[in-house]
Amino acid sequence: MPDASRRRDDARLLIDCADRPGIVAAVSGFLARHGANVLDSQQHSTDPESGTFFMRMAFRPDGDGLDGDQADAFRAAFDREVAQPFAMRYRMVLDPHPRRTAILVSKADHALLELLWRWRNGELDADLRFVASNHETLRSVVEGFGVPFHHLPITADTKPRQERALQDLLEAEAVELVILARYMQILSPDFVSAWPRRIINIHHSFLPAFVGADPYRRAYERGVKLIGATAHYVTDDLDEGPIIDQDVSRVTHRESVRDLRRRGKEIERAVLARAVEKHLADAVLVHGNKTIVFET
Amino acid sequence: MPDASRRRDDARLLIDCADRPGIVAAVSGFLARHGANVLDSQQHSTDPESGTFFMRMAFRPDGDGLDGDQADAFRAAFDREVAQPFAMRYRMVLDPHPRRTAILVSKADHALLELLWRWRNGELDADLRFVASNHETLRSVVEGFGVPFHHLPITADTKPRQERALQDLLEAEAVELVILARYMQILSPDFVSAWPRRIINIHHSFLPAFVGADPYRRAYERGVKLIGATAHYVTDDLDEGPIIDQDVSRVTHRESVRDLRRRGKEIERAVLARAVEKHLADAVLVHGNKTIVFET
Amino acid sequence: MPDASRRRDDARLLIDCADRPGIVAAVSGFLARHGANVLDSQQHSTDPESGTFFMRMAFRPDGDGLDGDQADAFRAAFDREVAQPFAMRYRMVLDPHPRRTAILVSKADHALLELLWRWRNGELDADLRFVASNHETLRSVVEGFGVPFHHLPITADTKPRQERALQDLLEAEAVELVILARYMQILSPDFVSAWPRRIINIHHSFLPAFVGADPYRRAYERGVKLIGATAHYVTDDLDEGPIIDQDVSRVTHRESVRDLRRRGKEIERAVLARAVEKHLADAVLVHGNKTIVFET
Amino acid sequence: MPDASRRRDDARLLIDCADRPGIVAAVSGFLARHGANVLDSQQHSTDPESGTFFMRMAFRPDGDGLDGDQADAFRAAFDREVAQPFAMRYRMVLDPHPRRTAILVSKADHALLELLWRWRNGELDADLRFVASNHETLRSVVEGFGVPFHHLPITADTKPRQERALQDLLEAEAVELVILARYMQILSPDFVSAWPRRIINIHHSFLPAFVGADPYRRAYERGVKLIGATAHYVTDDLDEGPIIDQDVSRVTHRESVRDLRRRGKEIERAVLARAVEKHLADAVLVHGNKTIVFET
Repeated sequence: MPDASRRRDDARLLIDCADRPGIVAAVSGFLARHGANVLDSQQHSTDPESGTFFMRMAFRPDGDGLDGDQADAFRAAFDREVAQPFAMRYRMVLDPHPRRTAILVSKADHALLELLWRWRNGELDADLRFVASNHETLRSVVEGFGVPFHHLPITADTKPRQERALQDLLEAEAVELVILARYMQILSPDFVSAWPRRIINIHHSFLPAFVGADPYRRAYERGVKLIGATAHYVTDDLDEGPIIDQDVSRVTHRESVRDLRRRGKEIERAVLARAVEKHLADAVLVHGNKTIVFET
Repeated sequence: MPDASRRRDDARLLIDCADRPGIVAAVSGFLARHGANVLDSQQHSTDPESGTFFMRMAFRPDGDGLDGDQADAFRAAFDREVAQPFAMRYRMVLDPHPRRTAILVSKADHALLELLWRWRNGELDADLRFVASNHETLRSVVEGFGVPFHHLPITADTKPRQERALQDLLEAEAVELVILARYMQILSPDFVSAWPRRIINIHHSFLPAFVGADPYRRAYERGVKLIGATAHYVTDDLDEGPIIDQDVSRVTHRESVRDLRRRGKEIERAVLARAVEKHLADAVLVHGNKTIVFET
Repeated sequence: MPDASRRRDDARLLIDCADRPGIVAAVSGFLARHGANVLDSQQHSTDPESGTFFMRMAFRPDGDGLDGDQADAFRAAFDREVAQPFAMRYRMVLDPHPRRTAILVSKADHALLELLWRWRNGELDADLRFVASNHETLRSVVEGFGVPFHHLPITADTKPRQERALQDLLEAEAVELVILARYMQILSPDFVSAWPRRIINIHHSFLPAFVGADPYRRAYERGVKLIGATAHYVTDDLDEGPIIDQDVSRVTHRESVRDLRRRGKEIERAVLARAVEKHLADAVLVHGNKTIVFET
Repeated sequence: MPDASRRRDDARLLIDCADRPGIVAAVSGFLARHGANVLDSQQHSTDPESGTFFMRMAFRPDGDGLDGDQADAFRAAFDREVAQPFAMRYRMVLDPHPRRTAILVSKADHALLELLWRWRNGELDADLRFVASNHETLRSVVEGFGVPFHHLPITADTKPRQERALQDLLEAEAVELVILARYMQILSPDFVSAWPRRIINIHHSFLPAFVGADPYRRAYERGVKLIGATAHYVTDDLDEGPIIDQDVSRVTHRESVRDLRRRGKEIERAVLARAVEKHLADAVLVHGNKTIVFET
């Protein structure tokens, strides 16, 4: 099976810079001169005349790959020859490996289990460091997957202290991605700013409809014919961060609020898992409050 | 093909009343005593203990159908024996015929053409009296289908007068259903109250997201991953009326506002046509600000 | 919340008989005379003139429900007064309880896990007796849910014997529903005939496309743009039994066979779970090789 | 609105060749040396080691575009410097213009009307030369759009002669794309080979299910829960050509064959229109019996 083109260990390059002619040639020329084969290339420009240019390239370095010194030299050359002339912001991943990840939950298990299943099956390219919760409810489930579980109960009084403890845990584990899998606590601006574009939340509505609390009840009361879920990066504006993925499911007048909640679980877990997979594949770029999501 | 069960000329009965035991038996017992065959029966209760009961029955009267006198007697008997004891609100259609319908448009043709095309093919069970518009743009299209076209240009000054002229036209034609197929004018409360639950609008967003003007631009700016459309009954609260149908389509970062508008047209026309078909089949009941939409 | 109308313990009545006037009246009249409230009623006729009539009613018996003697009397009266005159086949469930269920698997865990997770959450109204497999692979997963696991390894030589052992297990547990959650063995006609319309299989294609082995590879080779899954009752004709539910997912040229398999898992587990839920809610009737699936 | 990047008049380059390192660099380097800006680039490789490489680039030539002599020189340089060294098959469109197109129909109007509407609205980038049919039925509809209509009635005797007449018409108009919008005649191998990968058909099923005649009836008889449509390039193997697009719609036991046909029309017209738009945007490449369909 020709599946090789999508191996996890293909090197990746993500770029954003002011659009102008010659960017693709400069990048691909550099790679060609170093014997690398471009496996996939996708780009997006907000405006070819004066906009921002975004690109994701997957490539395979020459021969047996790059050892440590070669990798350093490759990076330095790219920075000097390509990135600086075009004033690029970029991320080059020469040796992709599972990203250090933590999951925060409250009591609901559906989004968590979906992630844990996929992780155990090797479908979620993450190095899962721990799951933390403000409740004990899901400890045995999590530990059953061999994943550490931290209980950080939260009251109005302890909230700032516990958030600090959580932040310490994340820092101690050098976590690069925080997943809110129905974590029902609002994070402080300080916390959010510590993981910019690295906290993914699942909101249980089709945003921007039903921002805020209890969206299924409000969907029921409004009498909508579709319910949805939205995965987005967390920013200081509640439910306003850049949307990564959304989906919906058809409902009828027969369905109660409880039915909508149950039905919604299926959408929430699928949408969150897809968004996390895209993020871990370095396929999501952010521009202002919007995302560019490339194919993987 | 056993398609007979869904002929247009099957009689229909729509009921709403306080829920209590014995309603189905009373209605079906009445029909059985009169030799009618129940072809389809659907019901919904908001709460069997203290809620509202809704039912739609399709049935075939005995033998060769009912002539005028028989029909009157049948109605009177139903009213006396069933409807009054249960304090029912009901609608009985013994001889279904195409409903007298008018379509209001501005300049966009997509939703209009979908309706005209289905109507010509016999898929829209309507007696289409006319199309009216505040622009001349679509006259030749409409007249090409053999449908009268009325031009009622509107300015800030003439708006009340022209709305009154439109209302006169609708009354002169005894119109029973008004379809707003992207009619870009807000109707006055007086107009709306004259056709309660008989004006269907298509809004070009997935309500309640993007209530109001220019939803595609706002969808673009928010960076949603799905765009939608919503067909609803018009009430005095703009975009807040009971929703009949909704649908969505997936979009990506590649799509401009113009692309969203174009893509949205397909959803708008499909959703509006489905909602109108449901209404014309007497399959939509309204409860507060929500709809019960039965299968047809 | 008015969710009471869909409680598991509502009594249910399923009927099929030759269509003729008066069936609905006879059934609902009987229920009314016994003080029962019809909570939901759905029907289908293949042809009102000479076809078969199908109905599913959910109802709530009078007062505090029926004790054992009352239930027997109620059943006997229904049989005598309604079922016999109309020559009905029927199933009356006065005291719904979780159906005794077994799941057969091979090595793949996705469909099994979906069922186990819903079952633990109370979303699958089943009394899960055991999981059996021709491999040991999933023992710890199953036992982690507190469900007995039986390993029945199969070789060409032992196949008939092991199938007999499996059948004994199912009979010993009085199993009423057998779910093939990616069980890669073909069952003998003898086995199938012992559980008519009570074995549900998930086939990993959109039937009737790709009947038989390795459908994802064949879908890949044909270059389809959608892949699917089908839940159906098992009959002696491989992949030809009555279809209960199907769904699809969009794929592109980028996806390898392995990607299709992975993507397909999500469809398989959702479709199988929905089909099983419909079956357990007595919402699936079979007519020839087709199903009537009522709303629940 | 930054919509400029997707103007019809952006130049396009389509490539297929054996995959090896340096292709992207060679192409983009060539464009950069000639002052062209790459607006979009998408690629696909069946296997980076030994497979086939496909690419679609949209670019904007330097300054005010290329006049005739410049365009010739540009082409010649590309051929010499890039295409020959990599043994590329390619198509370079420097001045995109609507493709010369003909539509063949029988009596059904739905797929035809969808194309005509989009064409009139400027959404179908085609130079529509004529519509031909073996029936007179749709003449007035077609002529109402200002499009020539040719009636070529077909009997068993006249079939070869009429097909030859049709071929003459297509050749006289130098037609580059033939759309079968529910044309119920099978084309001869001679005809098909004259427009390789330039005849698009809409088949009214989700292929490979229900190859051949009367798919809706067979779908009804099999009791499927989804019906579909497939747009594909026509080859000598009936319904076996490379699939461009497919879609499905959910159906229930309530729907008769006639209902399926009606429902299917909506899928057919949408799928055919999307496939034609992709083809006209040079976004479809064929590899063996499969398509690569790029984003547009």
